[in-house]
Amino acid sequence: MSEETINPKRRTLLKGALTLGAGAGLAACGRSSPLATADAATPGTSGSYSADVAIVGAGIAGLSAARRLAAAGKSVYVVEARDRVGGRTLNHAVTAPGASPGTIVEIGGQWVGPTQDRVLALIDELGLKTFKTYDDGNYLDYRNGQKLAYGHLLPDPLNLGLNRLPPTDPVGAAEAEKAILQLDQMAQQVPLDAPWTAASAKAWDSMTFQTWIDQNVLTPGGQSLITLAIESVFSVEPRDTSLLHVLFYIASAGTLENLINTAGGAQDSRVVGGSQRISLAMAAQLGNRVLLGAPVTHIDQDESGVTVRGEQFSVRARQVIVAVPPTIAARIRYNPILPALRDQMTQRMPMGSVIKVQCVYPKPFWRDGGYNGQVTSDTGPVRITFDNSPPDASVGILLGFMEGSDGRAASTLTADQRRQATIDCFVRYFGNDAAQPLDYIEQSWMNEEWTRGCYGGVFAPGAWLDFGAALRAPVGRIHWAGTETATVWNGYMDGAVRSGEAAASAVAALL
Amino acid sequence: MSEETINPKRRTLLKGALTLGAGAGLAACGRSSPLATADAATPGTSGSYSADVAIVGAGIAGLSAARRLAAAGKSVYVVEARDRVGGRTLNHAVTAPGASPGTIVEIGGQWVGPTQDRVLALIDELGLKTFKTYDDGNYLDYRNGQKLAYGHLLPDPLNLGLNRLPPTDPVGAAEAEKAILQLDQMAQQVPLDAPWTAASAKAWDSMTFQTWIDQNVLTPGGQSLITLAIESVFSVEPRDTSLLHVLFYIASAGTLENLINTAGGAQDSRVVGGSQRISLAMAAQLGNRVLLGAPVTHIDQDESGVTVRGEQFSVRARQVIVAVPPTIAARIRYNPILPALRDQMTQRMPMGSVIKVQCVYPKPFWRDGGYNGQVTSDTGPVRITFDNSPPDASVGILLGFMEGSDGRAASTLTADQRRQATIDCFVRYFGNDAAQPLDYIEQSWMNEEWTRGCYGGVFAPGAWLDFGAALRAPVGRIHWAGTETATVWNGYMDGAVRSGEAAASAVAALL
Repeated sequence: MSEETINPKRRTLLKGALTLGAGAGLAACGRSSPLATADAATPGTSGSYSADVAIVGAGIAGLSAARRLAAAGKSVYVVEARDRVGGRTLNHAVTAPGASPGTIVEIGGQWVGPTQDRVLALIDELGLKTFKTYDDGNYLDYRNGQKLAYGHLLPDPLNLGLNRLPPTDPVGAAEAEKAILQLDQMAQQVPLDAPWTAASAKAWDSMTFQTWIDQNVLTPGGQSLITLAIESVFSVEPRDTSLLHVLFYIASAGTLENLINTAGGAQDSRVVGGSQRISLAMAAQLGNRVLLGAPVTHIDQDESGVTVRGEQFSVRARQVIVAVPPTIAARIRYNPILPALRDQMTQRMPMGSVIKVQCVYPKPFWRDGGYNGQVTSDTGPVRITFDNSPPDASVGILLGFMEGSDGRAASTLTADQRRQATIDCFVRYFGNDAAQPLDYIEQSWMNEEWTRGCYGGVFAPGAWLDFGAALRAPVGRIHWAGTETATVWNGYMDGAVRSGEAAASAVAALL
Repeated sequence: MSEETINPKRRTLLKGALTLGAGAGLAACGRSSPLATADAATPGTSGSYSADVAIVGAGIAGLSAARRLAAAGKSVYVVEARDRVGGRTLNHAVTAPGASPGTIVEIGGQWVGPTQDRVLALIDELGLKTFKTYDDGNYLDYRNGQKLAYGHLLPDPLNLGLNRLPPTDPVGAAEAEKAILQLDQMAQQVPLDAPWTAASAKAWDSMTFQTWIDQNVLTPGGQSLITLAIESVFSVEPRDTSLLHVLFYIASAGTLENLINTAGGAQDSRVVGGSQRISLAMAAQLGNRVLLGAPVTHIDQDESGVTVRGEQFSVRARQVIVAVPPTIAARIRYNPILPALRDQMTQRMPMGSVIKVQCVYPKPFWRDGGYNGQVTSDTGPVRITFDNSPPDASVGILLGFMEGSDGRAASTLTADQRRQATIDCFVRYFGNDAAQPLDYIEQSWMNEEWTRGCYGGVFAPGAWLDFGAALRAPVGRIHWAGTETATVWNGYMDGAVRSGEAAASAVAALL
């Protein structure tokens, strides 16, 4: 079925993937591994291929789809613009003195949590393991120039996670808790597969989430907490998206607590060896059915099939699954052109704005002070931090996020300026021990050509209402995947798996 | 300076342009003229070229820039994806029985008005003429199933244009008038070159315009009128954009009345022979410096210059002006990639949604009934109409717009269904004489590959605040033009001219 012309360099890359998939060692998963590095000299895939299904994008969604189809006996090719797999997941080798051999941190998506059944099952099927995000000790809240350490101060028998809110401003915290419960209740009225059909959809999509805050959260403390929650979950500002989108996203994850909590929430656990291993392992199983360095420029449909092509390659198939974010899918040239609603939908789902920053220290010194490394702050650019040390704590790694407006403003600084701004924040929260990191690691997904923002696509006000139906609807032989199309855990690795598997099922039924 | 390889077919096209520019006749301006038709068999531009400045996009902005630079003695090439010039302006030959030879209608942008000084000057320089939009007789308002004809009932010595509002619901009309004055006053506080620096910018960009309506316009009649104004000016819904964007746009045009009025407003006059003649005449002056059928896929910058290239051509230049809408500019591949703010800005300025529909009748029969052909209606899909007959009234042409949600919904219908929906509206407004048009002409700019929506790009809430500065800021050798970048008459042909001339001045200073 396949007509292959694989250049020698690509074979080497794939061989790397296979070795990695066999568990050759964590060191190879870092940024310096063959698959994780974009080599400017790599010419990329060339030649002509054919298969039952072409899949665009070798992130978790595309690879999940390919794996499902391959398991069902269908021939597939996955074409990936980058010289690596993993999409918005990417391991980075930590080489600071003292770090155990093979130590990595993720510079992209990294956490999994309860009810993320599909990604957890996939992790298990691939022979990977998880471990708990470090969560022992006290949280820290920095507000109005003051620090407050706090823990699980109140009983929470229903595991609502409400105690995660800092009690620095009790009135604000109580108001934020009330708002969270209110949002959870409203979210239950949003049908996951068609949010625009909710009884209040028109009203909810006609206002920004900021307007909802203005109308429902009255104290500065409460507003600050809810704003921080939105920034950290969506990496946009409350003014950038609609109440309906926030409610859909909450519904997609179950509750807002699920989104913001560490233990028991979306930040519950990490993958041993790094989350990119999920994709590396799937790619290893797929072997030379994954074509790297293959940016797709055109998707042409005709009566008998579809051709996916780039400057030096083409894949002829019966169906195609496009598993990249909508705004990236918009940059492919389609023939025939996409329907009006589909194209205009892609114009209305921008990516969030985030820079992930990490400092490596000789040890996780904050633990000695009784801190779990998790900070909420009213002072940027880093307003959210986590302990991101490796399981063996051979080094201590503090992780910070510059999100929404902070990330946008920080994108105009130099790397040195961002490093200093990060250290300033870390010192503010954890003292002078944070002043001299062994290493500084940063990743702006806004500056990744094939993603152009993280964590995911976020609908602008009004977009769900008039364009939501175009998000998942196939266009002829073209099917859409990617976490933005997921109904459950939209925006997360779990949503990516679900979207890939759903697309695979839909396509398999047509073959 | 130029190294040319022009294929013979392109030369023929250009010769057509030159002939047209010399005023060969109106018939040649129609859709069947060489320049106005996309010929699928045309291979497009091939070869290598070099010039001081490469300009991407042969709409009014790009051609205005080219013309300025050429007049200053700079060498230029304008590369255009389509096989015609004019961008969002396009003449269409009316061939219905009785139509005078050379009769056209515009199926894209068409009107000019007072204070649009730059496009009016250009029209004059090019030897073109204007004529008044037909405005004699009564307006018609259709509301709650009732029709009301009305004229200039009240004195309007200050020419505020307030009498344009239908008096069907006097309370609603009064409330809408109050809202319009309120918006005009707020708009005066928006700096045209930096809307995000307005004192209230954060509050105004944090709410949708729908929220402002909900808070400031209390009667259904008033809400209906303000909503119709937004739909007809922006071709989006009030929920799709922010109060700040609406205020910027008003400020850019002077007043909201300027935007919505016919006589004395943005719909005041038309170009004899059609608005595409502006571009056709400029292209004729530029001759073989306009390269058609040349979709730009890459813009590569290096130390010594910039290369603009497509599949079969390249233009090497010292500077480049990209004169296409932001969302279309995003689909070009840049090396180095665009800065984070610039790319994410393009993700947040979607195009409006509109289908322009026109019916041709043996004569403008509504004039006999004392109507000027202009309707406002609470019943779609056509809620706004105009008399778009040619100056000699050899046929009568009714023009209607399906805008915002109406346009989006109508995009999923067949052309026959849209034709019937249009006729149903026209019959509702003007009676059974409208039931049997000689011809039906429709144009959905959402379905034009190189535009993907009209009238223009509209900022989502929050976009001006965090991304506004990236709208006009050059990126190395790349300069931005197009009506979306204009400070005055943004979104109009006049803004396009201004943006092109401003970019030309900026670039000329660097050569």
